[in-house]
Amino acid sequence: MNNSFGRIFTLTSFGESHGPAVGGVIDGMPAGITIDFDRIQHELDRRRPGQSAVVTSRNEKDRVEILSGIFEGVTTGQPIGFIVRNVDQHSNDYEPMRHIFRPSHADYTYTEKYGIRDFRGGGRSSARETISRVVAGAFARQALDAIGITITAYTESIGEISVEGKKMDFAGIENNPVRCPDPETAARMADLLINLKKEGDTVGGVVRCVISGVPAGLGDPAFGKLQALLASAMMSINAAKGFEYGMGFEGVSQTGTLMNDIFTVDSSTGRIHTETNYSGGIQGGISNGEEIYFRVAFKPIATILKQQPTVTDEGERAMLKARGRHDPCAVPRAVPVVEAMTAMVLLDAWLMNKTIHI
Amino acid sequence: MNNSFGRIFTLTSFGESHGPAVGGVIDGMPAGITIDFDRIQHELDRRRPGQSAVVTSRNEKDRVEILSGIFEGVTTGQPIGFIVRNVDQHSNDYEPMRHIFRPSHADYTYTEKYGIRDFRGGGRSSARETISRVVAGAFARQALDAIGITITAYTESIGEISVEGKKMDFAGIENNPVRCPDPETAARMADLLINLKKEGDTVGGVVRCVISGVPAGLGDPAFGKLQALLASAMMSINAAKGFEYGMGFEGVSQTGTLMNDIFTVDSSTGRIHTETNYSGGIQGGISNGEEIYFRVAFKPIATILKQQPTVTDEGERAMLKARGRHDPCAVPRAVPVVEAMTAMVLLDAWLMNKTIHI
Amino acid sequence: MNNSFGRIFTLTSFGESHGPAVGGVIDGMPAGITIDFDRIQHELDRRRPGQSAVVTSRNEKDRVEILSGIFEGVTTGQPIGFIVRNVDQHSNDYEPMRHIFRPSHADYTYTEKYGIRDFRGGGRSSARETISRVVAGAFARQALDAIGITITAYTESIGEISVEGKKMDFAGIENNPVRCPDPETAARMADLLINLKKEGDTVGGVVRCVISGVPAGLGDPAFGKLQALLASAMMSINAAKGFEYGMGFEGVSQTGTLMNDIFTVDSSTGRIHTETNYSGGIQGGISNGEEIYFRVAFKPIATILKQQPTVTDEGERAMLKARGRHDPCAVPRAVPVVEAMTAMVLLDAWLMNKTIHI
Amino acid sequence: MNNSFGRIFTLTSFGESHGPAVGGVIDGMPAGITIDFDRIQHELDRRRPGQSAVVTSRNEKDRVEILSGIFEGVTTGQPIGFIVRNVDQHSNDYEPMRHIFRPSHADYTYTEKYGIRDFRGGGRSSARETISRVVAGAFARQALDAIGITITAYTESIGEISVEGKKMDFAGIENNPVRCPDPETAARMADLLINLKKEGDTVGGVVRCVISGVPAGLGDPAFGKLQALLASAMMSINAAKGFEYGMGFEGVSQTGTLMNDIFTVDSSTGRIHTETNYSGGIQGGISNGEEIYFRVAFKPIATILKQQPTVTDEGERAMLKARGRHDPCAVPRAVPVVEAMTAMVLLDAWLMNKTIHI
Repeated sequence: MNNSFGRIFTLTSFGESHGPAVGGVIDGMPAGITIDFDRIQHELDRRRPGQSAVVTSRNEKDRVEILSGIFEGVTTGQPIGFIVRNVDQHSNDYEPMRHIFRPSHADYTYTEKYGIRDFRGGGRSSARETISRVVAGAFARQALDAIGITITAYTESIGEISVEGKKMDFAGIENNPVRCPDPETAARMADLLINLKKEGDTVGGVVRCVISGVPAGLGDPAFGKLQALLASAMMSINAAKGFEYGMGFEGVSQTGTLMNDIFTVDSSTGRIHTETNYSGGIQGGISNGEEIYFRVAFKPIATILKQQPTVTDEGERAMLKARGRHDPCAVPRAVPVVEAMTAMVLLDAWLMNKTIHI
Repeated sequence: MNNSFGRIFTLTSFGESHGPAVGGVIDGMPAGITIDFDRIQHELDRRRPGQSAVVTSRNEKDRVEILSGIFEGVTTGQPIGFIVRNVDQHSNDYEPMRHIFRPSHADYTYTEKYGIRDFRGGGRSSARETISRVVAGAFARQALDAIGITITAYTESIGEISVEGKKMDFAGIENNPVRCPDPETAARMADLLINLKKEGDTVGGVVRCVISGVPAGLGDPAFGKLQALLASAMMSINAAKGFEYGMGFEGVSQTGTLMNDIFTVDSSTGRIHTETNYSGGIQGGISNGEEIYFRVAFKPIATILKQQPTVTDEGERAMLKARGRHDPCAVPRAVPVVEAMTAMVLLDAWLMNKTIHI
Repeated sequence: MNNSFGRIFTLTSFGESHGPAVGGVIDGMPAGITIDFDRIQHELDRRRPGQSAVVTSRNEKDRVEILSGIFEGVTTGQPIGFIVRNVDQHSNDYEPMRHIFRPSHADYTYTEKYGIRDFRGGGRSSARETISRVVAGAFARQALDAIGITITAYTESIGEISVEGKKMDFAGIENNPVRCPDPETAARMADLLINLKKEGDTVGGVVRCVISGVPAGLGDPAFGKLQALLASAMMSINAAKGFEYGMGFEGVSQTGTLMNDIFTVDSSTGRIHTETNYSGGIQGGISNGEEIYFRVAFKPIATILKQQPTVTDEGERAMLKARGRHDPCAVPRAVPVVEAMTAMVLLDAWLMNKTIHI
Repeated sequence: MNNSFGRIFTLTSFGESHGPAVGGVIDGMPAGITIDFDRIQHELDRRRPGQSAVVTSRNEKDRVEILSGIFEGVTTGQPIGFIVRNVDQHSNDYEPMRHIFRPSHADYTYTEKYGIRDFRGGGRSSARETISRVVAGAFARQALDAIGITITAYTESIGEISVEGKKMDFAGIENNPVRCPDPETAARMADLLINLKKEGDTVGGVVRCVISGVPAGLGDPAFGKLQALLASAMMSINAAKGFEYGMGFEGVSQTGTLMNDIFTVDSSTGRIHTETNYSGGIQGGISNGEEIYFRVAFKPIATILKQQPTVTDEGERAMLKARGRHDPCAVPRAVPVVEAMTAMVLLDAWLMNKTIHI
């Protein structure tokens, strides 16, 4: 079931960019939770195109319709079906691409695999697929709120511009269109994106995610390690090229003496914690109660409004210049998707952990 | 099923470091394949302790006993049960650690999660768990051989020493104990490890893996993207802290114009391929026929033979100095584990791909 | 994922009786199959209320809307989302049942399990849930047609009236409202149902299903035996109380000498087959190429239009007399549901079987 | 994963009749339960050949070796690997069957499906596969004991001899070799079996299972209905031909007025229960707190010590007369297997039910 994610709390998603709708089924949502529907729509609004000058000007409203699993505003424990209708599609923009493989897109691989593809707007490989993830994540977050787990993702870098080492204000992340927690860095990022958009070019970047309030015990040994679940979740997002947590790639050149997290006891609470957190809040695949943090690398979006040589599905050389309205960078709109996938993983791990003891 | 991996070709593993045995069940191994048992033992020998001066001097023979699923040397399509007995254990080395949490180990998290742990040799969190992966991977590779898929992993860096940019000889990887494809770099790495071993310290590093002969079409859209399956596999290996493929973290600061892989046609074969391979052989989650490559970061091993402050399971401060025989670096012995997990993912994706059409 | 069924070809379903819609996601439908949408609607029409005098007079049109996974009339290998809007609901009929547990319904168990239930029309426990099964089955059948597998279910008995031993005409099954292959028996069954409907009472019965054209090799040893998959499918249908295949319950009082199916060879084709078929087309959990047949028992529908004593959710005694429009017997409308579930199991087993060899 | 069963509490099994061992991996056993190993061996002894005059005289000791997941006698939450060595095998008895298909066995279907089979003792299709089920069930039962759920299976009928309507003494089930709760009926059954054994013939029968102490709330709507899980479990046992629960096949000819279970309130406890139990303790797929009961039909064992015509794997006619030591009836030794599978289903459903609420 390649379009399903999770073990207890699960999402099964469907939908192409230019079909009637995208949507999904959430199974395993705990019963008895009063749902704030405005927050679900709010998360979709954070993801949607047309929200600012640094993203595509496509004006997709993305209104979610919940079809089941809620009774009188409360979750019933039954599967939650939902759809988001596709509107404001310019399918004709894609007609010239019926027989052409766009570079670094999924056109060629889908055709090789399936022998058929819905070429309009990327079909199933479109980032519109992430709408379903955002809806499911918004449900998961409402359960996590009650549990006390908080998830915050933000834009750490776009191109060469990074917020690393800057003073960060998490409360201000949503105050700028790039979702960077330092206003000055955010302004530079936004300038870069507006210039790239004019040029018809794109750029990559990095999203960082921080999870607090995680109790010790989430995640499982062997193949269900929490970092494996998170990596799988993040690497399944369109355009993701890398995942690291805790000390990540950089820390691995260090020695064990420097990188070990020494345990200590909080003398006031008696609670065991670590003095440093190179482990990233996970040890042996299981959360240790410290903050979990990880980074996800996103490549530059493949759709550029420039002439590119390519080939047709008949194996003939051709030139391609994309039309339409596109994002200069995946990162600002990826932030809510990263949060949504994280929420799904965390709630699933939390529910799974309830089965450890009778 | 947290101790199971895969969808069609699956491994379910069990076993603690100082219990009677580790082992597993391979389900979904295709029928009719003649097995070379020496190659399975050979892979275990590449993983085993005591194989060289740069690894732990524990002398574990790790002989695998196959219990089912093979008849007259040929796979029958039935589940393959196997065990590797644990021998040469010094369980007494661990008695002092019954009530102590080793820094950056799984002692604390297992205790918090389960309320009980087998503290001897790390129990289930021991790297001996990877034995089962190597056995399953060795079976998968024999199917992949017949298909024509080749997997090569090697040590790219240990500490600050990297083979990047050097002339590499894949045939020579197994000629040195660190499994680095450049003899001169390998010698420097080995010196570093021997020195660290004397000091009782450890260091991290990076394994790179290259897969060739992959047909276009492996992997699935949405949550079953090939990179998500590989990331999940790699991040489930003990001590892994990061995963990247294709352009990875470094390439994301570039523009789309630079990072797009232009399609072209081989005029002699008529085959479509890409001029560059920043995509890392995967587009839209599906292999495109180019070489797949990725990198895995491994942290410095947490067990150091130095005094470290820590706490007991009663929350009291204590000092700890590990005894026993340990590796100075996970990377050389991780190379066959990375290959094994890669083989499992690839065979599974290949079998899954058979179900796309009637 | 309790609302998902299957391994390769899967259905994830959602929806309550009186919510906005029921629907589901079909994942794993093979790519490249041209879909006849009229046949899908036709299967829904066979299941729908209001189709004849022997079923409920609720007039549910049950129009399916396909939302994804089809491009220009052909399956793309992507998930197929679909919905059927709920219309003609008389939710007010159920308001008196908000706090009352209907006998032999799911009201009490849902309340005990979830602490909340959508009481309107039975909510998730309504037989409207089977709509999603019929849609998924209708897709599966179109793949099975191409493979050459044919599925026929019919009403074998209603109450004490049985068609066993009668001359049966499968072509005539749909010519009568009870779906019985003997017109004379069908007429007696219809009379019984019309009388029961007047009385406000209900009755049970048995559906028999016959599958022909099944190649040898479908199903798996151990837990994936074809009969286990079929039993699981059938016993998950509302009101099913029993499943048997081949010789069933009756044959078990016989001796092995009488019940063994002797192999023989068709001298014209050289094909091996069995002289008798007490095995029901399955040996060792795997199809042997003979006809598969099984029976499913359906209890009398619990909703009767008579006074019944019961209790409230406060544990107080109460009297209940159902209102609304109900079926006198589940069997006639269960026939297409049995066929649909069978189709799902068979296609799934057929696809799974493709992974046995490289 | 066709050799795996369950969702949270799972068994993955392996092993052929005449290979080195059968065994399995139990994943999801709750942590912190002190294990009584004698009880596990006791369950194996109830299943083993050679235990009495009415079963095969093969003298298999079936000693289980636990390889992991237990520390100092207590479950750790880690996977429990186990093996039972195969001994007292007369593989030579089977050499003549290398190329012959035994009637109503799995020889033909395995050969058709896999192209290869281990013909010795039936290989994977042997009832020795149920050893792993009995071990896993024995673990599950120790958790269920703590929860308060009790499972009792017994022989209801063998051939035409049935205990239905007799006064039954559950405490006496193990006092006779056929496991029938009425001594007089048991004696008649034993006589029948001893006679059949002399004749080299076999007979079928029915096992009934009763579960008490089940809390309301186990099982799930749609495809995870408790009866669907039980049916799947039972129909996966070798030789099972039918499953029914509650009113079963017989009750379906009745009216709803007669078969509805009226709710009432126990005036002393205030507890809601039903006056009758035609539902068999399950309503809407979820346990209602009443006793669960079901019946499983087992066909006559296919191996008879008489001449039978058959065909070879070359499609030539041949005569076959089985040698070796065989059971005259599957039922007495199936009783502990039915209990084991039931225990696995119940514990799994109980653990799953913990995830319904946060």
